[in-house]
Amino acid sequence: METLFSKIVKGDIPCYKIAENESCFAFLDIAPLAKGHVLVIPKQPVDYIFDMEDNDFSELMLFAKKIAAAIKKAFPCPKVGMAVIGLDVPHAHVHLVPLQQVKDLDFSRERLQLSPADFAEIAKSIAQNLV
Amino acid sequence: METLFSKIVKGDIPCYKIAENESCFAFLDIAPLAKGHVLVIPKQPVDYIFDMEDNDFSELMLFAKKIAAAIKKAFPCPKVGMAVIGLDVPHAHVHLVPLQQVKDLDFSRERLQLSPADFAEIAKSIAQNLV
Repeated sequence: METLFSKIVKGDIPCYKIAENESCFAFLDIAPLAKGHVLVIPKQPVDYIFDMEDNDFSELMLFAKKIAAAIKKAFPCPKVGMAVIGLDVPHAHVHLVPLQQVKDLDFSRERLQLSPADFAEIAKSIAQNLV
Repeated sequence: METLFSKIVKGDIPCYKIAENESCFAFLDIAPLAKGHVLVIPKQPVDYIFDMEDNDFSELMLFAKKIAAAIKKAFPCPKVGMAVIGLDVPHAHVHLVPLQQVKDLDFSRERLQLSPADFAEIAKSIAQNLV
């Protein structure tokens, strides 16, 4: 099944990419809750994250852990929060959001409006902090 | 460091337990966003989830995946959502919440008020659905 996100992985739809490995891909959420809000996805489309095989799921979560460390360096915050909702795009995705307060992970909040230059700068600063 | 949650793991503070293994523990959130809202924690207290060692983190997430499957059977829903915020109790915890809609994972929502009998019944129905 082709999804919005599998088109992003293939490069058919542009994104502000952070990183990828053999099975996972990370890019900026373009309707961010905060600067540094990243989506981490498996390259293989699967709708529901908990339907993933254990190995694939672990790999995705460990990839998210690495990205979270880079986000925290690029956008200092007490913690990077994580959320999986999955009621919109039918391709599992992990939200990683730098949190200053609990409401920074409230998905009913108004999203930030950022320019392409802002997004590019944010993506670069996170990518540069990847170990 | 002793935390509210490590006291729960030791049994010094009561909880509605769902399951445990050598390193992880699952119990009901007593201020639930929805019926079936569970907290999954590492038994060893660690404040920030992404500070965990890769193996410990994977184990926690795979344990959460098993619990999520049981929640979905006990409380049918399109998906079980997952969130890690961690700005309150300094002991990493994964929220698992049966979602009917996005706002079911909004932590600024008013929490459900349930009786001890309700909590006991919910915990039992999830535990019974564990594979």
